[in-house]
Amino acid sequence: MIARIDGARRARAPQAADSESRAADDHHLALRVWLRFLACANIVQGRTRASLRQDFDSTLPRFDLMAQLERFPSGLKMSEISKRMMVTGGNVTGITDQLVSEGLVSRQTAPRDRRAYAVRLTPAGRRAFREMARAHERWIVAMFGGLTKAETSQLHALLAKLKQHLTSQTN
Amino acid sequence: MIARIDGARRARAPQAADSESRAADDHHLALRVWLRFLACANIVQGRTRASLRQDFDSTLPRFDLMAQLERFPSGLKMSEISKRMMVTGGNVTGITDQLVSEGLVSRQTAPRDRRAYAVRLTPAGRRAFREMARAHERWIVAMFGGLTKAETSQLHALLAKLKQHLTSQTN
Repeated sequence: MIARIDGARRARAPQAADSESRAADDHHLALRVWLRFLACANIVQGRTRASLRQDFDSTLPRFDLMAQLERFPSGLKMSEISKRMMVTGGNVTGITDQLVSEGLVSRQTAPRDRRAYAVRLTPAGRRAFREMARAHERWIVAMFGGLTKAETSQLHALLAKLKQHLTSQTN
Repeated sequence: MIARIDGARRARAPQAADSESRAADDHHLALRVWLRFLACANIVQGRTRASLRQDFDSTLPRFDLMAQLERFPSGLKMSEISKRMMVTGGNVTGITDQLVSEGLVSRQTAPRDRRAYAVRLTPAGRRAFREMARAHERWIVAMFGGLTKAETSQLHALLAKLKQHLTSQTN
């Protein structure tokens, strides 16, 4: 049995195949929190990927790219899109080319800098994005539905404090 | 100014270039929590990648792969490693080949199934991993240092409830 769990330190309980199972009891609480955090993020992202594929024949990087453009009706440069993308695994140029060929995104040369294309959603792209965004919100609401309103607010506040600390750090 | 923020709904405050800035006030609380969650996860992962590169000339997928092997001294099949990897962007075969060539990982054909290699850490690989794991834990402890012990425990409990709901869902 190749995948047997060896070592007394690990032998306490059957463990799920996710990042949290890496956290042995002797690890610091912060590390256990982070591995649980990562496990949750991976599940939510995995489900979102699957739903986008199934319901919209689309991908998370496509959705992410359109979400960035939706916030900037006057357009974004390719470099700005790359910087703002929240999910990895996407080739921004390739995705943009594909969205342009589908009529969901337009790309225009900026007058001042011919290398800097202004990329924006077309009206069709905006409609398509909004439909996906509504569904995406429903999926997220369902996935976080295990928490009460008070717990969700508490999580929101804890994450605010965590993020504040993270963005204030220089390392 | 190409990246101008248009629309009264967005005009409230300057916004950071991260996933959370997508969350307008009319979005459901769960969605705002998720975008903040994702922003934190991205910062922690980004810093971890940078530190692994800087201090160990290594990568997150390499660290992740070695972490999976560390849990299974008797070895894992390639397919099991792929399933257990928590970070994306890694080519499991390529990373394994590289670790083998560095003497950190060994690969043996399993007697019963010649296609199923048993991959495991070598003693040198185990030592290298443990050194990285100690540093990794320090980084995580520092990044979560903005929360008090009580808040960290509270976050741990909320994530347990979230994860329990996520893994009980069939969707």
